[in-house]
Amino acid sequence: MSTGLLGLRVDGARLRRSLEAMAELGATPGGGMHRLALSDDDRRARDLLVSWLEELGARVEVDEMGDIFGRRPGRDAALPPVITGSHLDTQPRGGRFDGVLGVMGALEVLRTLDDHGVETLRSVELVDWTNEEGSRFAPAMLASGVWAGALDRDWAWARTDADGFRFGDELARIGYRGSAPCARRPFHACYELHIEQGPRLEREGVTIGVPRGVVCLHWYDVYLEGVANQVGTTPMDGRSDALVTAAEMVLEVRGLPARMGGGMVATVGELTTHPNSRNVVPGAAHFTVDIRSWDDDLALRAWDALQAEFRAIAERHGCGIRVEETWRVRHNEFAPELVARVRDTAERLGYSSLAMESGAGHDASYLATVGPTAMVFVPSIGGRSHVEVEETGWEDCEAGANVLLHCVLASADEPAPGEDAV
Amino acid sequence: MSTGLLGLRVDGARLRRSLEAMAELGATPGGGMHRLALSDDDRRARDLLVSWLEELGARVEVDEMGDIFGRRPGRDAALPPVITGSHLDTQPRGGRFDGVLGVMGALEVLRTLDDHGVETLRSVELVDWTNEEGSRFAPAMLASGVWAGALDRDWAWARTDADGFRFGDELARIGYRGSAPCARRPFHACYELHIEQGPRLEREGVTIGVPRGVVCLHWYDVYLEGVANQVGTTPMDGRSDALVTAAEMVLEVRGLPARMGGGMVATVGELTTHPNSRNVVPGAAHFTVDIRSWDDDLALRAWDALQAEFRAIAERHGCGIRVEETWRVRHNEFAPELVARVRDTAERLGYSSLAMESGAGHDASYLATVGPTAMVFVPSIGGRSHVEVEETGWEDCEAGANVLLHCVLASADEPAPGEDAV
Repeated sequence: MSTGLLGLRVDGARLRRSLEAMAELGATPGGGMHRLALSDDDRRARDLLVSWLEELGARVEVDEMGDIFGRRPGRDAALPPVITGSHLDTQPRGGRFDGVLGVMGALEVLRTLDDHGVETLRSVELVDWTNEEGSRFAPAMLASGVWAGALDRDWAWARTDADGFRFGDELARIGYRGSAPCARRPFHACYELHIEQGPRLEREGVTIGVPRGVVCLHWYDVYLEGVANQVGTTPMDGRSDALVTAAEMVLEVRGLPARMGGGMVATVGELTTHPNSRNVVPGAAHFTVDIRSWDDDLALRAWDALQAEFRAIAERHGCGIRVEETWRVRHNEFAPELVARVRDTAERLGYSSLAMESGAGHDASYLATVGPTAMVFVPSIGGRSHVEVEETGWEDCEAGANVLLHCVLASADEPAPGEDAV
Repeated sequence: MSTGLLGLRVDGARLRRSLEAMAELGATPGGGMHRLALSDDDRRARDLLVSWLEELGARVEVDEMGDIFGRRPGRDAALPPVITGSHLDTQPRGGRFDGVLGVMGALEVLRTLDDHGVETLRSVELVDWTNEEGSRFAPAMLASGVWAGALDRDWAWARTDADGFRFGDELARIGYRGSAPCARRPFHACYELHIEQGPRLEREGVTIGVPRGVVCLHWYDVYLEGVANQVGTTPMDGRSDALVTAAEMVLEVRGLPARMGGGMVATVGELTTHPNSRNVVPGAAHFTVDIRSWDDDLALRAWDALQAEFRAIAERHGCGIRVEETWRVRHNEFAPELVARVRDTAERLGYSSLAMESGAGHDASYLATVGPTAMVFVPSIGGRSHVEVEETGWEDCEAGANVLLHCVLASADEPAPGEDAV
């Protein structure tokens, strides 16, 4: 990169306008967003993105999973490109920044390069990944998973939402089932700008988060079988109450991270009881356990300890117990040289930074299995995300986009191994 | 009553056949019953009952709430009658005995009187009360409540089920919206034979339960407001997890009866969380509390203690809390002279008996507000009720019907005050 570009900065006001324009498509009365994947609002958001990319003269391509790529050609089209983006779909009644900032930040990078007539050695590609949230079509990160080769395209097309609509049909309905193959191809570097979705940056007064990777993710399902009975006629001493049993287990999960150490988090997010009637002793219960840690083995040991405790609790209450080990993803490390670049770039631009881990999965998790990948985090006000009040300061959005700009620029001007910089 | 009638006994085999015939109408594959109020199966059960009453020559009358009365005239039609019965509707996937035994037992009493050509001074009326369970149309004991004057007829007609069908319309649809007013009228005595629905009689090896009344019933609703957040990115120490908060409260409720004493029971039967998603820290929760005791004041003091504890727990977790005092019914005492008659009759017939309280509400609870009322309980195998495996031994059904027979006979031959026995 020419040293003349060191002073290059994005246009923060324009970035804000892009984010605000996107936030109109699927806005909720509560100030949030409800733009589920492949909904009409998702189509409108995609149309707007495509129109902006076309204004820039980018080459737009839509693949079979609806992923939108906007390519700004480099001097050597044969070299693997630099990829940057995120997703435009949101959680149900979610926020305006999760995902969208990474796409609008990438757009702002392309626009800034154009404003200043910057040529890069490698092409720079913006990408909007389909169905990252997984709220309408499970699982999350569906399209980046297919692109990375971890998930099968036909299986993905056959995923249905709660109303029985198929992913592939809905993709065609909104006009975004493209013809380009959804398949991994070499890239030189991939960066994803994203809100932190947690409170650490704000609490520590830091602008840029530099995740070294994504923690492991272990999901379990626990099923309890007690004895349903009339509440008024069943004495306390003979009860096998599945909800009381589950309540003790929920508190075990809550106390687990403190017992295990290592920055682990453990959560029961879902709990249902049966028959769930106010005058029947609960006869059955189901709940989920989510355990995350950078240390995969610690998370496994934690589950072993928890499971032993669960069985003891169930036995004490005379409840049957069945556990399912539903899903396990190992922790995922980003490319150390790109992580270092994010950190160094923040420092050079005068932003404070904090080394951390990502507690949430991102499209970048799948991208990291294909090529060198890193992320840039900016603070979430109050640490809130996946809710309507999700917010990030406009200055922090701009700071994140500036770090993204200079990371992309640096990677886009790196020659192929054995070549000199052009 | 003539001493020649002391040896009178019901026909246990015929009682069993009646119960088995009724159990065919709405039978479930699991061996239980699914005969919701005003369903087609309820209509068939009513038709069968009416045909049996007509075979006996009883005068059948259906009132505006669908209650079916079958009158066996006494020598003095002007005297208030003896009423005995229960209900033919069942819980969803409930059992074959709850309610039905009280109606078939009453039928067996009428048949036995006919078999032996017994004349009584007072008329004896069998009754099938509509919608006792309240599972399809809330609240429970709807028709006996209207009859007793505690509930309004038009309000009852306007009750809707989960699909929006109105009680009054469904009553007309199945042909049981009768013309007789549903209104209290004097009776000399009322007896209801019912399964215990709890484990005490079986545990103590006793055949006849003699409830002195129905315990008080206090219902509460608790709403918690925490902070929903992404589970992976939200550290444990800053969470306001509404489910963890609710779990601590559930355990408080479980421990309450042991702390308060007095034979109280306390139950959380219903609990729901929001958004109830495995990767979101629960942001809100709702649960119910059901407290029952013979001692109304003890139950109120228990709630005061519980509520203080709830507020402390909510504050510790940073959760908002709102409580609603949803419903309170004071304990309800049966007529001591009739309770004594049930106990003495059991003894005279050679059945063991146990003084107890009813933990569940019954149509008899409303009847007791109008005139002298008592109940006869028989054992529930395993204490199970409101479930498909609900069961009572045939010999115990017969024993209960014999106690009912002799209680009815004794009351039906009692003269009006100031008269001699005829």
